[in-house]
Amino acid sequence: MTAPVKPVPPVQLTLSPEQGALGGSNARYEKRLPDLAGLYRDTAAFEQLLGQDDGQPVYWVESSQTEEGPGGLITGISVLEPGKVGDEFFMTRGHLHAISDRSELYVGLSGHGVMVLETVSGESTVVEVRPGQAVYVPGNWVHRSVNVGTERFSTLFCYAADAGQDYSIIERAGGMKSLVFDQKGQWESRPNPDHRGYAG
Amino acid sequence: MTAPVKPVPPVQLTLSPEQGALGGSNARYEKRLPDLAGLYRDTAAFEQLLGQDDGQPVYWVESSQTEEGPGGLITGISVLEPGKVGDEFFMTRGHLHAISDRSELYVGLSGHGVMVLETVSGESTVVEVRPGQAVYVPGNWVHRSVNVGTERFSTLFCYAADAGQDYSIIERAGGMKSLVFDQKGQWESRPNPDHRGYAG
Repeated sequence: MTAPVKPVPPVQLTLSPEQGALGGSNARYEKRLPDLAGLYRDTAAFEQLLGQDDGQPVYWVESSQTEEGPGGLITGISVLEPGKVGDEFFMTRGHLHAISDRSELYVGLSGHGVMVLETVSGESTVVEVRPGQAVYVPGNWVHRSVNVGTERFSTLFCYAADAGQDYSIIERAGGMKSLVFDQKGQWESRPNPDHRGYAG
Repeated sequence: MTAPVKPVPPVQLTLSPEQGALGGSNARYEKRLPDLAGLYRDTAAFEQLLGQDDGQPVYWVESSQTEEGPGGLITGISVLEPGKVGDEFFMTRGHLHAISDRSELYVGLSGHGVMVLETVSGESTVVEVRPGQAVYVPGNWVHRSVNVGTERFSTLFCYAADAGQDYSIIERAGGMKSLVFDQKGQWESRPNPDHRGYAG
C-alpha cells in the first residue's frame, strides 16, 4: 500500500504580510512597472508613471515548493503595492492554470483587495478579500488580484504543484472582461471595451 | 485547449478562528471525548475525564469542497480545544492521505499547537504552529495536530480533493511514534513505547 518512497522534509513557513515576506520560502519573483507595459488601458497615465518610476516592484511573490507532481502543493504569499494607473488599481497580470482544472486558494493576510474571476465561457465576478477572508478559485477560472486599498495587499495562496500558469490567455483576449477602477475612493468594476472573449 | 466545462462558482470563506467557525463552509464533523477512546495512553485518566464529560466536542472541522478530482482542493479550519488526558495534550486522531503522496498545508490561525509528522520508514518530527506560521506537510507523512496551549488551537488547511484519509494507520501501529506531553507547562515529546512501526 505504501510505496518505498523517500519523503521530502516538512517545511515551516513564517508569514510577514506587512513586510511582504515568507520566511522559509525558496523562490521569489518580482514585477516592476516596466514589466507591466500593456496591462493598463490608460497608456498615457502609464507612460507618465513610468517617467517617475523609482524602480521598486509593483508586486512580488515569495513561495515554497519542495515537491513536483500532482501530490505536491505550491504555497506562498502574493504582495501587491497600492497604487493606480489612471483610475485602474494596481493588479497582477492574472492567469489560468496551464492544467486548467487546477484550483487555487487565496487567503487575505493584509490590506484590502479583490479577486477578479472569469470563465472562458463569459462569466465574470469580483470577490472582496480582506484579512480573515478567503476565496476558493475553482478550476477553469481566469483570476487576477487587485489592490483596491491604500496599504499593501498580501494574500496566502496554495495550489497544486503541477498546475502551471497560462499568463497569455488574458493578453490574447484583449484584457479581462471586467476592469476594476477607483470611483471616488471606492472600487467598482466596468466592462473592458477591448475584451474579445477568451474562447476566440 | 480549453474543454467545454461548466466551472463551479468561486467560494468566499470567512475565518473566525477564535469562534472555531468557517463562514461559507459546506461540511462539518465533530469528535467528542467518547469518540476518542483508545487514542490516549493513560486509560485511567481517560476514564476519569469521561466521567466528568460535558459532551462538548474536543475538536471539529468545518470545511468547503465544491469540486471532486485531482483539480479540486478541500479547505477548512480545524479547531482543537485545550486540555489533557493525563499528561498528553488534546490531539486529533491524525492520518496519512489515502493517496499517500498528497500533501497538505496547515496555517496557524489562533492558539498554540504542534504538528507531529512521521514517515512510514521511521522518521518523526514535531513542528510548532502559531498564528502567522504555516507547515507544509509533504506527501507520505502521517500527521496529527496537538493543542499544547491554553486557548483554542485553530488552523486553516488545504489539500487535494482526491487525497482521502487513512485514519487507521496510526491505530494499526499502536499509536504514533512520538507522544507530545506536558512537562511543567512546556510541551515535550517522548517515544511511545506501544508504537510498533507503520510498515508492519
